[in-house]
Amino acid sequence: MPRYALKVEYQGAPFAGWQRQKDLPSVQGAIEAALARLEPRAHTIAAAGRTDAGVHALGQVAHCDLQKDWDPFRLSEALNYHLKPQPVAILTAARVDDDWHARFSAIERRYLFRILMRRAPATHDRGQVWQVPHRLDIAAMQEAAKRLVGHHDFTTFRSTICQAKSPVKTLDELRVEAAEGLSGPEVHFHVRARSFLHNQVRSFVGTLERVGAGAWTADDVQAALEARNRAACGPVSPPQGLYLAAVKYPRDPFG
Amino acid sequence: MPRYALKVEYQGAPFAGWQRQKDLPSVQGAIEAALARLEPRAHTIAAAGRTDAGVHALGQVAHCDLQKDWDPFRLSEALNYHLKPQPVAILTAARVDDDWHARFSAIERRYLFRILMRRAPATHDRGQVWQVPHRLDIAAMQEAAKRLVGHHDFTTFRSTICQAKSPVKTLDELRVEAAEGLSGPEVHFHVRARSFLHNQVRSFVGTLERVGAGAWTADDVQAALEARNRAACGPVSPPQGLYLAAVKYPRDPFG
Repeated sequence: MPRYALKVEYQGAPFAGWQRQKDLPSVQGAIEAALARLEPRAHTIAAAGRTDAGVHALGQVAHCDLQKDWDPFRLSEALNYHLKPQPVAILTAARVDDDWHARFSAIERRYLFRILMRRAPATHDRGQVWQVPHRLDIAAMQEAAKRLVGHHDFTTFRSTICQAKSPVKTLDELRVEAAEGLSGPEVHFHVRARSFLHNQVRSFVGTLERVGAGAWTADDVQAALEARNRAACGPVSPPQGLYLAAVKYPRDPFG
Repeated sequence: MPRYALKVEYQGAPFAGWQRQKDLPSVQGAIEAALARLEPRAHTIAAAGRTDAGVHALGQVAHCDLQKDWDPFRLSEALNYHLKPQPVAILTAARVDDDWHARFSAIERRYLFRILMRRAPATHDRGQVWQVPHRLDIAAMQEAAKRLVGHHDFTTFRSTICQAKSPVKTLDELRVEAAEGLSGPEVHFHVRARSFLHNQVRSFVGTLERVGAGAWTADDVQAALEARNRAACGPVSPPQGLYLAAVKYPRDPFG
């Protein structure tokens, strides 16, 4: 059975998350149902990152096995046809080796988190940003973010239901920048690592937002990290500002 | 009765347009209903630009007359409370003179039009861009756009139902630029004039898209303009990429 890598974009709002669930809409379930329209049988696909309910993707990567030898372009077109009108799109598809795995072959994940800073309710970006009614101090958040980059025990920034064997991870990048959105001033967090703990990005962002609001200092963030204690974490941000932006492999399957 | 100017943002998709209509949802109707929650009676508000069905606004301006002397900030907060969950937001409110008029006092309107160039269906920006599956030649569109700027008889680019007395207008700016959106490469059209004819921006964009696709030349656009004939226009673009971006007054009421 030939194996295909799929680069997937989706809106998180209508789904209970990536992972297939009984009686709840999921992104995995939507794509598997589209595959069943092409080859009628049960399909099981695997993804680089199992995003939570409400979390979006710009470049999630999954793989599927098919019986027929599909032209990758036709495969993406056919899947998009069957995925409509759900907000899930196959951006590109590629033939990969039989032992290539969307999750286990991945060597890096990138996330984007968007905060919209304004008082009036968002209209165009509703459900696609975390809206805060106050201005945030970008320089203070940048300073605090530096304390988190590197090889650390991230127990503080890990959900209590996280299933990773170890809380020790290397955070390669946590870049905070001002951005101008259609609806007003935004803060973008660009976060990059080989892999992440459950809720790690949302725990970082929720804690750094407290720094931007002036309630926490960079030293408070460092003390929270060093506490290696989930109770030391700031509030966890809501999911709707989070996007799985890209996944990297030793060789780009779509390149 | 004190008069208030309102800066309004909205998504066009759920509405039959700005203008109040019997039995159809409209932005005007939504704001008037919110006003009636504050002062129970019939309200009639006026806007700088009566956007069509599906057209969005980032900075529409309207005015309303109220009996009570409202603090402008409290007025915008109260209206936003009653507008929820509709995708309409009052960005700011200001007290203005009794003879100030959102439409007749305006001296300039700015529109933004967004085209998303990609094959896979849009997910995050669905209904907020005009999606074309091919790449467009930005330089060619910039060259052709220059032919439209200035004082012209714009009969070619005017809907047959346009009610303006004269088709002669001065187009102050029609800037075409490449932009990088969340979902891929975009083309943004920035259009500026004292006032516009009905469907003028969508007629410009639909015609310039043909230039970007290589089907028309800049000379074809000039010939279409000089024909002063609606039949010479290119296809009119769909509404969902269009945003009323800003309205200018001799003195900024919100400044």
